[in-house]
Amino acid sequence: MKAARPLPEYLVRRYQGWKATTYSDNRAWYRTLAAEGQHPRAMVISCCDSRVHVTSIFGADSGEFFIHRNIANLVPPYNPDGDHHGTSAALEYAVTALKVAHVIVLGHSSCGGVAGCNAMCSGQAPELESKTSFVGTWLNILRPGYERVADLPDDKRVAALEKEAVLVSLENLASFPFVKEAMDKGTLSIHGLWNNIGEGTLDMYDADEGKFVQI
Amino acid sequence: MKAARPLPEYLVRRYQGWKATTYSDNRAWYRTLAAEGQHPRAMVISCCDSRVHVTSIFGADSGEFFIHRNIANLVPPYNPDGDHHGTSAALEYAVTALKVAHVIVLGHSSCGGVAGCNAMCSGQAPELESKTSFVGTWLNILRPGYERVADLPDDKRVAALEKEAVLVSLENLASFPFVKEAMDKGTLSIHGLWNNIGEGTLDMYDADEGKFVQI
Amino acid sequence: MKAARPLPEYLVRRYQGWKATTYSDNRAWYRTLAAEGQHPRAMVISCCDSRVHVTSIFGADSGEFFIHRNIANLVPPYNPDGDHHGTSAALEYAVTALKVAHVIVLGHSSCGGVAGCNAMCSGQAPELESKTSFVGTWLNILRPGYERVADLPDDKRVAALEKEAVLVSLENLASFPFVKEAMDKGTLSIHGLWNNIGEGTLDMYDADEGKFVQI
Amino acid sequence: MKAARPLPEYLVRRYQGWKATTYSDNRAWYRTLAAEGQHPRAMVISCCDSRVHVTSIFGADSGEFFIHRNIANLVPPYNPDGDHHGTSAALEYAVTALKVAHVIVLGHSSCGGVAGCNAMCSGQAPELESKTSFVGTWLNILRPGYERVADLPDDKRVAALEKEAVLVSLENLASFPFVKEAMDKGTLSIHGLWNNIGEGTLDMYDADEGKFVQI
Repeated sequence: MKAARPLPEYLVRRYQGWKATTYSDNRAWYRTLAAEGQHPRAMVISCCDSRVHVTSIFGADSGEFFIHRNIANLVPPYNPDGDHHGTSAALEYAVTALKVAHVIVLGHSSCGGVAGCNAMCSGQAPELESKTSFVGTWLNILRPGYERVADLPDDKRVAALEKEAVLVSLENLASFPFVKEAMDKGTLSIHGLWNNIGEGTLDMYDADEGKFVQI
Repeated sequence: MKAARPLPEYLVRRYQGWKATTYSDNRAWYRTLAAEGQHPRAMVISCCDSRVHVTSIFGADSGEFFIHRNIANLVPPYNPDGDHHGTSAALEYAVTALKVAHVIVLGHSSCGGVAGCNAMCSGQAPELESKTSFVGTWLNILRPGYERVADLPDDKRVAALEKEAVLVSLENLASFPFVKEAMDKGTLSIHGLWNNIGEGTLDMYDADEGKFVQI
Repeated sequence: MKAARPLPEYLVRRYQGWKATTYSDNRAWYRTLAAEGQHPRAMVISCCDSRVHVTSIFGADSGEFFIHRNIANLVPPYNPDGDHHGTSAALEYAVTALKVAHVIVLGHSSCGGVAGCNAMCSGQAPELESKTSFVGTWLNILRPGYERVADLPDDKRVAALEKEAVLVSLENLASFPFVKEAMDKGTLSIHGLWNNIGEGTLDMYDADEGKFVQI
Repeated sequence: MKAARPLPEYLVRRYQGWKATTYSDNRAWYRTLAAEGQHPRAMVISCCDSRVHVTSIFGADSGEFFIHRNIANLVPPYNPDGDHHGTSAALEYAVTALKVAHVIVLGHSSCGGVAGCNAMCSGQAPELESKTSFVGTWLNILRPGYERVADLPDDKRVAALEKEAVLVSLENLASFPFVKEAMDKGTLSIHGLWNNIGEGTLDMYDADEGKFVQI
């Protein structure tokens, strides 16, 4: 792999700082984690967005959350066709091998992926509709959510679609047989959240109310 | 989405603690991030494993890294077939929309995904070879790496395969036309790392030496 | 004490979150508690097990329960030999200095200590029978309970022994003169509970029925 | 056990509330904990005092901390004499069976046990010096700490002795061979904290500075 380059020096220095402080102060725990393996309580599915780090929001310890991050925190529908499905593989591993007790889908405001889906579905982004656009084909997962908010005025539609990204993912989660089975047995529960980046608020989907409510 | 459940109370309390401290102390920056969007310098592709949080190792700020996490930090080969490819979509978005300057692949020790690939490829995990195993079909991405280390004795093979997971991903990265183009223009560089969880060490792939060297 | 290490950073952050929320919202009460001292209504004796937090189950306020936690929620027999007896000291302080009105012994399912006692008493854990095993000598307190369930088949014996751990402790409680005296005066009552962790149920010892009944 | 009484009704009602809310919302996790066992990161040794609940201060999850609570958060010296040593048993189980990575000793202000030790050691509490006083013999563990602060004026001595209770415990911890061994291997670290109840502050023992510093 000739093309690989050295790590930028500022990251080397930061790593060395971490090694001398955080790692050094927690060596015993890192060694236990290495020797005993991980036993995370929850899987979190969140966006790749650099502004949303779930470990910060929830003061998470190393070993606490199994975290999958993709564009717009989407879970595709169950489709065991033998192709490479990274999200489905992460979900299967978390539920069947690690036996996590929770799957938490965390959406957020100002999501570029969701904005792209809105543009695509409303005909303003033909480049995303090309079969060769990975982003466009990925965001197609959210199209059923778009249909439910298509009639909203422009200024409200994107915010509503960010929450649909959480709901569509929760719906698709339940289409996986191993998720359904664990939920039926009472060993797995699923949760929907949406974070407003600028305000620092967190909304939780309330199934009884049928809407998101601020915590 | 009737099945969604309330968030566990201890996470609500921890979130409220974060809101009153980290968020409150950094409100101006979160508002800027919300208003101006993200401008991350690097995309990081790492494992979902709960023991490896790249934001910790590199002291990352909000807004700094665009992070994709999947099982075994794998990048599949370029394959624009119109299906949902979460990793390829995240890569495309990072390189073409966000124009990140680096893609960093971060592997790690004691990786359950890599151990599963080794078991599958050496014929000890027939359940992963089933077409309906998402984990198995996902780990097939790493099969070319397995072929290169297949002759090693058992006790060395898994560790070698963890590093192959980084190298195969770097190779596959370069198969994406938009990655190749950005690398050729000099606007993107790619990097391979491997973290020993228990020892806290970080090895970097050195293209000149053709091997990983400890930082 | 050269060997002490700094607190892990994630706990520092969580503490700071608590300080800014729970403490800040209840400052007046914490200050009163500091100035006026504690006046707990009950002492609770429960297991160290990380899965059983009595403050959660009973929604306990700060200042409400004086809590002693040890392996398998055991109370040793009265034995004033001048040695260090942590459980007896806690009991003496609660009953004679704090004058609590209740002592509640709370057992639980899947108790590692009780399972160890069963293994030891049935001859399957010689390492616990060593005089240098603190765990083994501690679990000897429960041996009279083992004798009462020794004839049960294996699959029922451990569950029965978990309840014996509560009963033996209640019996030993009554062997302390200051406990007996307070009970005789009608200023103290004692209670036995057993919590099924997985099912969330709570069984209470019913002295009239002579058995545990689910609440 | 004829003397056991029914649980006070207000606790029955609170338990039922917990069952319908916290347990119900977290059933999956409680079932996982029951089936998979506990894997706590840390053992905490704190006081029975009803005003100091470590799970609150650190936003702890069920399954996170193995908690031993006794009078004045004391660890006795290593003394494998075959008697019942509850603290030593809890420590042995945490370090050798659960393989926790941290032992945290948490002291606190206004500690009745520490005040009692001060009274006893300065000759003002002859009843505690009786061999039949469990509290007095237990508090004797702290006598070496008293010697180090005996010359301080009365108004400063008790506060200093509260911190000595943490230091003596840390020193005694290191006298246990299995603790020493795990520390030497780098799989266990020990930590000293002191909580001011009224102010909500937390002081950490800094081994480099040789004193407690506020976080």
